[in-house]
Amino acid sequence: MSVQWLSDAVKAPDPLSEHSALERQRHLTKPPGSLGQLEQLAVRFAGLQRSSVPRLERIIVRVFAADHGVAAQGISAFPQTVTAQMVANFCRGGAAICVLSQSLNADFKVVNLGCVGEINEHPILINQPIAPATLDFTQAPAMSRTQLALALNTGRAQIGPADVFIGGEMGIGNTTAAAALLAALFDLPAAAITGRGTGIDDRALATKLHVIERALELHRAKRGQPLALLQALGGFEIAALVGAYIACAQQGVPVLVDGFISTAAAAMALAIQPEISPWLIYSHLSDEAGHRLALEQLGAEPLLVLGMRLGEGSGAAMAAGLVRDALALHNGMATFTEAGVSDAD
Amino acid sequence: MSVQWLSDAVKAPDPLSEHSALERQRHLTKPPGSLGQLEQLAVRFAGLQRSSVPRLERIIVRVFAADHGVAAQGISAFPQTVTAQMVANFCRGGAAICVLSQSLNADFKVVNLGCVGEINEHPILINQPIAPATLDFTQAPAMSRTQLALALNTGRAQIGPADVFIGGEMGIGNTTAAAALLAALFDLPAAAITGRGTGIDDRALATKLHVIERALELHRAKRGQPLALLQALGGFEIAALVGAYIACAQQGVPVLVDGFISTAAAAMALAIQPEISPWLIYSHLSDEAGHRLALEQLGAEPLLVLGMRLGEGSGAAMAAGLVRDALALHNGMATFTEAGVSDAD
Repeated sequence: MSVQWLSDAVKAPDPLSEHSALERQRHLTKPPGSLGQLEQLAVRFAGLQRSSVPRLERIIVRVFAADHGVAAQGISAFPQTVTAQMVANFCRGGAAICVLSQSLNADFKVVNLGCVGEINEHPILINQPIAPATLDFTQAPAMSRTQLALALNTGRAQIGPADVFIGGEMGIGNTTAAAALLAALFDLPAAAITGRGTGIDDRALATKLHVIERALELHRAKRGQPLALLQALGGFEIAALVGAYIACAQQGVPVLVDGFISTAAAAMALAIQPEISPWLIYSHLSDEAGHRLALEQLGAEPLLVLGMRLGEGSGAAMAAGLVRDALALHNGMATFTEAGVSDAD
Repeated sequence: MSVQWLSDAVKAPDPLSEHSALERQRHLTKPPGSLGQLEQLAVRFAGLQRSSVPRLERIIVRVFAADHGVAAQGISAFPQTVTAQMVANFCRGGAAICVLSQSLNADFKVVNLGCVGEINEHPILINQPIAPATLDFTQAPAMSRTQLALALNTGRAQIGPADVFIGGEMGIGNTTAAAALLAALFDLPAAAITGRGTGIDDRALATKLHVIERALELHRAKRGQPLALLQALGGFEIAALVGAYIACAQQGVPVLVDGFISTAAAAMALAIQPEISPWLIYSHLSDEAGHRLALEQLGAEPLLVLGMRLGEGSGAAMAAGLVRDALALHNGMATFTEAGVSDAD
């Protein structure tokens, strides 16, 4: 099981398309700069899509689901069976990301990488379980090298020609894994990066912190080795996101990064392959406590601040609407010349 | 010309619909509160629309256009002829608000209340000029009482049954009028509330400040009388927004307030009829310097922060997409029971 492809070349944005988009923005019937971040988004997507007419029509949404051995430590408000139950809810269209994917007319699929509960086949389910769950990373590495490779490759396999990719995740316990990864990667104290996830109480939060601290101690020798950290502290769904993000940059597909867990995946992907940076657009600031710090570590500016903390790719899907509007404005507005409007003095 | 209707009763949101929406949010397949402001928006719209299934289908967008006598003082980067030129651009579909209205499938019309340049008839133009422009308010009240009443009534006449109303404005010089109104209403120094509008340089900004200070001095006796202030310092398009907002609250139509100028209109409307407050949803924080302070004075929390400063209703139209997603999630997501998903421990 090879992951050699991780070091394959990454595409570069096209400066000419960026430049011509910037020129076009200057001539649209509005004071220069008055569409703020919508202008920057249009210019950025022009560069990424190598087109002066960037589009957001072909949207791939994948929700990666997997269970976490560390859930046994009592770090979530929800029982572990919820992961598989939510996979069924994704398949039947009842979850937030389903509603948003439908309104975006996106290509939406769910990828099962290994859940404890029962999973039934479904046309939109890609069922490729690696194991019933990762191992409890307070006891051992979460996964084997082969399992890590399987997860990375499954993520990569989801990417094909598209105008944007949105990755989501579902996995009871995965804010614990994400916080541990971010703490280890950025050498942060667990308390600075750990939040309440689905909404745990003070007692469970204290447990969660202690669990993360033990895991950081156990896997200390892996500091500075991002793949080894991902193997030790990750989840199958987080590794799949890492594989998907790197594949996007290699294939020239812009990524809307979702919230806390997706940002942890983005941080790991960047540590493995720093050149993917231009392809990652940070969609929102989650209400999960550590997200702001994680974004700061990445020098990332999120587009939306809506107090969301659901995961599933839901914040990225909200931002996709924004990007679509930005591109519609870029392509659809008249220039001063076309409209016969006088430019600024 | 009567404006007696300004003091007519305002509708109240329905607490039962709000309560049932809040209950529904608690049972949807997500951790409670994890959709953040999207949950609050759904509950608020349920109360305003008196429905447990709030909708955003019938969207009224009106851009009110008018010229300002104070433009003669050299307070804008654009010549005054641009107002009429942009009216033509709105009619032909080339402006930002046209593109956004189209993607929202909104009922979009332009209302001419009086421009210096030539205005040609068009199917989507409501042509009701009051005068070629207001008077220069450094010399005299901007309008007569009759003109004020005409503008207020024209705004009111735009409102009918709808799921939401978006008001926009176009008028070279209208950030000067808006800043003067906000300074007079909230007793603020001109420098605290005055920004660069379409993008004036330091010299024009100094002129703009001086112009506003002179106007505030000239019309000082009208402090505490919102209608008299609106007559003295307003624009026809700002007064039309005031009339539209108050009519919305009387007819039960939620309002998405746009940026700086619309917020000045909202502040004047609130001063005239404080009970309209629940109907005003603040869509975004504009990049125009005084907007943050104006929102703070109103205790308002904007939904979006995108560095926009275009007006036309463009920020409100961006927020409409957000509200539509919030309502789609509210109506379309499955409950824990429907989905067979276990609730939190």
